[in-house]
Amino acid sequence: MEADVKAATGMANPTAAMLVIGDEILSGRTRDTNLHHLAGVLATHGIDLREARVVADDRTAIVAAVRALSATYTHVFTSGGIGPTHDDITADAIAEAFGAAIDIRDDAKAILMDFITARGVEATPERMRMARIPEGAVLIENPVSAAPGFSLGNVHVCAGVPKIFEAMVAGVMARIEHGQPVMSQSLRVERPEGEIAGPLGALAERYPALSIGSYPFSEGGVFGANIVVRGVEGAMVSAAMVELGRLFPEATR
Amino acid sequence: MEADVKAATGMANPTAAMLVIGDEILSGRTRDTNLHHLAGVLATHGIDLREARVVADDRTAIVAAVRALSATYTHVFTSGGIGPTHDDITADAIAEAFGAAIDIRDDAKAILMDFITARGVEATPERMRMARIPEGAVLIENPVSAAPGFSLGNVHVCAGVPKIFEAMVAGVMARIEHGQPVMSQSLRVERPEGEIAGPLGALAERYPALSIGSYPFSEGGVFGANIVVRGVEGAMVSAAMVELGRLFPEATR
Repeated sequence: MEADVKAATGMANPTAAMLVIGDEILSGRTRDTNLHHLAGVLATHGIDLREARVVADDRTAIVAAVRALSATYTHVFTSGGIGPTHDDITADAIAEAFGAAIDIRDDAKAILMDFITARGVEATPERMRMARIPEGAVLIENPVSAAPGFSLGNVHVCAGVPKIFEAMVAGVMARIEHGQPVMSQSLRVERPEGEIAGPLGALAERYPALSIGSYPFSEGGVFGANIVVRGVEGAMVSAAMVELGRLFPEATR
Repeated sequence: MEADVKAATGMANPTAAMLVIGDEILSGRTRDTNLHHLAGVLATHGIDLREARVVADDRTAIVAAVRALSATYTHVFTSGGIGPTHDDITADAIAEAFGAAIDIRDDAKAILMDFITARGVEATPERMRMARIPEGAVLIENPVSAAPGFSLGNVHVCAGVPKIFEAMVAGVMARIEHGQPVMSQSLRVERPEGEIAGPLGALAERYPALSIGSYPFSEGGVFGANIVVRGVEGAMVSAAMVELGRLFPEATR
């Protein structure tokens, strides 16, 4: 109901989607952590994360997803596939999605060469692949291992290694427009959702400008739900929380 | 490159996508764990998970994603949004995606009533919402809290609470066709990807029937990569691993 509520409140926050690129997530080998990080960062900056997708290291799949998401949302953040190995095909796929030329670019090459020279390692052709940047893209700094990400149009292409992804997202956030941060408060009720659903639905109807979500859990035989109230007006969120406290006096914040 | 390799080997395993439904993942409140679980289960059953999407509790978004994924893959697994509260709209959205009627169904109602009677709780209209099942759907058993999931066409609609999601996936796996499980072995190399990329790319070219992925990490100042070799022929995977061991003798399995 989030999206409906935001439409109702006339909030015009920028929107975003994330595209996670990598076989390792879909094969069950690795657990993605970048989505959770990005979601938190965007929430505090008033950018509304509306969708996420995970695709394999498959050029056709990446191109299709980038085109669809880029056309729909204000921003798209990608993670993964920009390293030096044969399975790193993200930069070429992004260039294809935008019909942009791609080659080794002098600015990216200079950054890589500085890093490589300082560490006394070899400038292999594979390392130089990381200087392949689509025409017209703006570089995203990589304070960890030099090889830059890039923004092309509204798509921000970041590394998959979490530490580097997080640094690159911080770099992007410093230069894009933010929205109105969404305030959020939550209440833990140790009662099955079937019992709280009636009064909760009535409350949600009385506060159409808020998003009131119920997220059930079952822990050690106890059924309960975390009720989360979100909205851009802090005072309204607090008022709804006071009412919730009256409805479910045994609940804990 | 996974998908390309599979095309090259002529593997005809069933394919799958996952659709995670819920504001709580996109707002950064909750970390999804169901994707990782499903990925592992599908891998061991030879079903090729090709894509995952996360959308908000927004009917239009759910309908569009279900239609797109259902038309593209053999199976679609959804998680979330089938509880009794006002923000649980998945069942109605799935019915809409398939143009199916939806109402309280006697078989689902009987299951819920048994559970409700045994626990001595009230059969509220909100609880009865969980017996709303699209026409033509097959129920998926919920051994934890009774309220069933359902399969409609090739879409398997499961609960979001991890314990219930996992039980429902097991139920679905028992009745759908499996493929040839993919064998996987991995090697940890503590060298930057830029150094290993050349020989690794050459090896990948010599084994077109395998998927050879390189997943970089940086831990405490050490740059390295986990190299993962995957394929349906165990002997071929092992042969490639022997060659990898020769290329990177310092590596550890």
